[in-house]
Amino acid sequence: MPQEPPNDGMSRRELFKLIGLTAGSAAMYQAMTSLGYAAESGYKGPIKLEGDPKGASVLILGAGLAGLTAALELRQAGYKVKVLEFNSRAGGRNWSLRGGDTYTELGGATQKCEFDEGLYLNPGPWRIPYHHNGLLDYCKRLGVKLEPFQQLNHNAFLHSSKAFGGKPQRIRAFKTDFQGHTSELLAKVVKKGQLDDVVTKEDREVLLQALRSWGALDKDYTYKAGDLTAEFRGYDKDPGGGLGAEPVPGQIIGLSDIVQSRLWRSLTSFALYEFQTTMFQPVGGMGRIGEAFAKQVGDLITYNARVTKIDQNDKGVTVTYEDAKRPGAMQTASADWCVCTIPLTILSQIDIKVGAAMQAAIGAVPYASSVKVGLQFKRRFWEEDELIFGGISYTDLPIRQISYPSTDYNTTGKGVLLGCYTWDGANSYEFTAMSPEERIKRVVEYGTQIHPQYAREFENGISVAWHRSPFTLGCAGDWTDEGRKQHYDNLCQIDGRIVLAGEHASYIPAWQEGAILSSLDAIGRLHKRVLQG
Amino acid sequence: MPQEPPNDGMSRRELFKLIGLTAGSAAMYQAMTSLGYAAESGYKGPIKLEGDPKGASVLILGAGLAGLTAALELRQAGYKVKVLEFNSRAGGRNWSLRGGDTYTELGGATQKCEFDEGLYLNPGPWRIPYHHNGLLDYCKRLGVKLEPFQQLNHNAFLHSSKAFGGKPQRIRAFKTDFQGHTSELLAKVVKKGQLDDVVTKEDREVLLQALRSWGALDKDYTYKAGDLTAEFRGYDKDPGGGLGAEPVPGQIIGLSDIVQSRLWRSLTSFALYEFQTTMFQPVGGMGRIGEAFAKQVGDLITYNARVTKIDQNDKGVTVTYEDAKRPGAMQTASADWCVCTIPLTILSQIDIKVGAAMQAAIGAVPYASSVKVGLQFKRRFWEEDELIFGGISYTDLPIRQISYPSTDYNTTGKGVLLGCYTWDGANSYEFTAMSPEERIKRVVEYGTQIHPQYAREFENGISVAWHRSPFTLGCAGDWTDEGRKQHYDNLCQIDGRIVLAGEHASYIPAWQEGAILSSLDAIGRLHKRVLQG
Repeated sequence: MPQEPPNDGMSRRELFKLIGLTAGSAAMYQAMTSLGYAAESGYKGPIKLEGDPKGASVLILGAGLAGLTAALELRQAGYKVKVLEFNSRAGGRNWSLRGGDTYTELGGATQKCEFDEGLYLNPGPWRIPYHHNGLLDYCKRLGVKLEPFQQLNHNAFLHSSKAFGGKPQRIRAFKTDFQGHTSELLAKVVKKGQLDDVVTKEDREVLLQALRSWGALDKDYTYKAGDLTAEFRGYDKDPGGGLGAEPVPGQIIGLSDIVQSRLWRSLTSFALYEFQTTMFQPVGGMGRIGEAFAKQVGDLITYNARVTKIDQNDKGVTVTYEDAKRPGAMQTASADWCVCTIPLTILSQIDIKVGAAMQAAIGAVPYASSVKVGLQFKRRFWEEDELIFGGISYTDLPIRQISYPSTDYNTTGKGVLLGCYTWDGANSYEFTAMSPEERIKRVVEYGTQIHPQYAREFENGISVAWHRSPFTLGCAGDWTDEGRKQHYDNLCQIDGRIVLAGEHASYIPAWQEGAILSSLDAIGRLHKRVLQG
Repeated sequence: MPQEPPNDGMSRRELFKLIGLTAGSAAMYQAMTSLGYAAESGYKGPIKLEGDPKGASVLILGAGLAGLTAALELRQAGYKVKVLEFNSRAGGRNWSLRGGDTYTELGGATQKCEFDEGLYLNPGPWRIPYHHNGLLDYCKRLGVKLEPFQQLNHNAFLHSSKAFGGKPQRIRAFKTDFQGHTSELLAKVVKKGQLDDVVTKEDREVLLQALRSWGALDKDYTYKAGDLTAEFRGYDKDPGGGLGAEPVPGQIIGLSDIVQSRLWRSLTSFALYEFQTTMFQPVGGMGRIGEAFAKQVGDLITYNARVTKIDQNDKGVTVTYEDAKRPGAMQTASADWCVCTIPLTILSQIDIKVGAAMQAAIGAVPYASSVKVGLQFKRRFWEEDELIFGGISYTDLPIRQISYPSTDYNTTGKGVLLGCYTWDGANSYEFTAMSPEERIKRVVEYGTQIHPQYAREFENGISVAWHRSPFTLGCAGDWTDEGRKQHYDNLCQIDGRIVLAGEHASYIPAWQEGAILSSLDAIGRLHKRVLQG
């Protein structure tokens, strides 16, 4: 007979069953949460804006995810809603560049995307953590189909121009060797009793077993090349079938080379809560989310509307804007209330009538710089030649990352790589300063050091340097702890008839979830204020 | 200007470029391989069986992946091919059970699969490693669409009935704490200089940096609850948007609890070469591969053919078989050559005329026991309630694993879990001994300890205990090192006019890649023999 479960397990199960049967699954889930099964999320399910706003009107500035969320929910709650958007499409930084699209950056350079049908670059957000349940819920409600985004691929590379003669290392081999060597070192001192002050006698033997398992150590707690380590780091010759099929394990990298290479720096990119499996991307490009929102609330949006002034008094809000297609043609829009999601980089340059505290907050948040470059290649050589299916290679070269597409795996035909993704740092500003053509040229040159196939297979590319985006003038709010302490609450408070929202008004800056949760919080508070009359 | 790449990188790039431009991409790839970029695989691309077999005929026994591969390639090479298959479908252990299917196991119990449209259980293989390039290439050639199989999901559970009061632990939290505590311990002795005999002075400081990064240690190399550790292990309250959105980090688990829980045993399941990201599954079920093969060579297959005798002389091979639908109706089939892929459990009970060495080998390989149980639930509670999207929870309960579907993420509606997957061990035999109904009942009971929602949401289930499969009498060849040394080559050698193939004749037992590579090796050698006359 299978082993009986222990009593405490049974009694908990019985408890849950009882709660479930008598009180329904919501109550059961609540009980589970209180017992520590589920973490508390910033998203509590679809917002309920109960109570009649009695014809109140709201003007929403910006049709990014924060503005779109506000538009969807406020109209649903009975408000008269209008949205002004500077860009000619909805979504904001939620955006996919596809073949035929054009993009004009500040400075006037216009790029035409020459990708083949079905290929795209997500210049802005490109991955969704599993715990961003606000965004996931909107995807579900809007019918946006998701597929896994591959963040960690053990067969992708870690690369440093200063280590291993510039030769890229497979993540699987490097990571195994790092774990192996450090486990061996720790096992050594544990065996000697040098940690007996912090590791009890009872724990010592089990800790040694754990290190052996974790580090792929042999029975003497040594990490060395052989069949066991190959089972984790891979082989020089893989096991096969039939005669002559015996595998050949490879050598291991020495501790000093592992440590001095600094490649371990990139390993955190796979362990962080924000980057852990399972991550997602919408099928067909991140832009599908903005597009799906626009299907619902597109009729509320006035595009190409560049806001120049935001005024308010105790009766309402009046916004002055220019038709970007007909410069000089100024118009105004008025409403009882205003949800302003304009990025602070731009809002700080607009004449807005708010108190000193919010005014100071608006000017206090620097924006991260970021550059992304998409490259189309004639064939998916990363899959065909190197068995890299999705995931990211990290490098110390200015391109920082090469990310392989998380879709259409194992197919023939062309593919688009993310050839460069910088985040702050001098390299971001350097790429931003270049012309689009120069960026592509450089990115292809750098990438060739990791993938020599670039030289033969490259076809075309497109780049977005976020500090040259007319619509955001930067990538995302880059709060310091100090800045947040001083200004964050002032930024989020309702000022008269105006409330701000967006990723910059959240604790999840640069993520779409931040924009959505900020928006839900803002409209929730605004609605309460409206009902108070 | 972006930083210039170092000379060695440039020169290698130039070299590849030169090779690529002058000699084409195959040569470039060869150069890369010789420089250590690519590992040597057991699969060298589509097999080339050059030379005319002059009308030679081959009888293939078994229409699993080994037999199907042989049929496809041998017919392509000009052979007259016939296949005998005991089962009523092609694919062998490559199989998906879907709604409406029935399955009768040894002992006579028949189960009808009651899954809803689109849901399935893969009783046999269910995941494809990225380095199984033989199988991947056949998927490509046969048009089998793949999607990622999620092996590691940081938000799935590690569970022990003997630890943490039976409360499941999130993998992300446990893994972070394990890395944190062990890194702290190692940093402690490194700082004290207690490892100066093996860690040089130059490496010491960098190793400390590495441990700090890897273990999420603070500036004093301490692992403790706070914002930093929460960035890896997750929060008690996630960061949110707007006011009151500050995150709350959770507590950490102490070293002793981590170690004594033994939950670290399951962490290797995510690090092994065979289980590393990126893994795949065919869209719609693993069975899609066998089905796609059958589209190509189905016309060659005689189903329901139970082989009872395999005879050979120097002119050819004669096989006696019974129509399983009409017991007692014996027939024979003859050919010049025979590729026999019948599992050794069954082949060892068949009268086969081969030499003593092969005969001994056929009897020398025990087969692993395995049981899988699929459970259909009314809703995808693991996603809706617990944010578990794909991946596997490991437990010390007899069910061993719960695997969440790697498809249709974030959708409403029903779902099928793998509720139990045993591999050898007493629990395998215990589940095998039960009736199908009893298996389901037990599996639901055990699973409820990890997911209390089972109690309310369970609808129906189906189970396959491989030792009760009439077609394999076990799950897969379970070689010992000793057995392999003595018998493996004897098993794979051509004996007269008979050659064996299958996962059991490979160094990748229990994997489809083993079956394919074994088959390709066998038919390659057979073809040479045929050409020799």
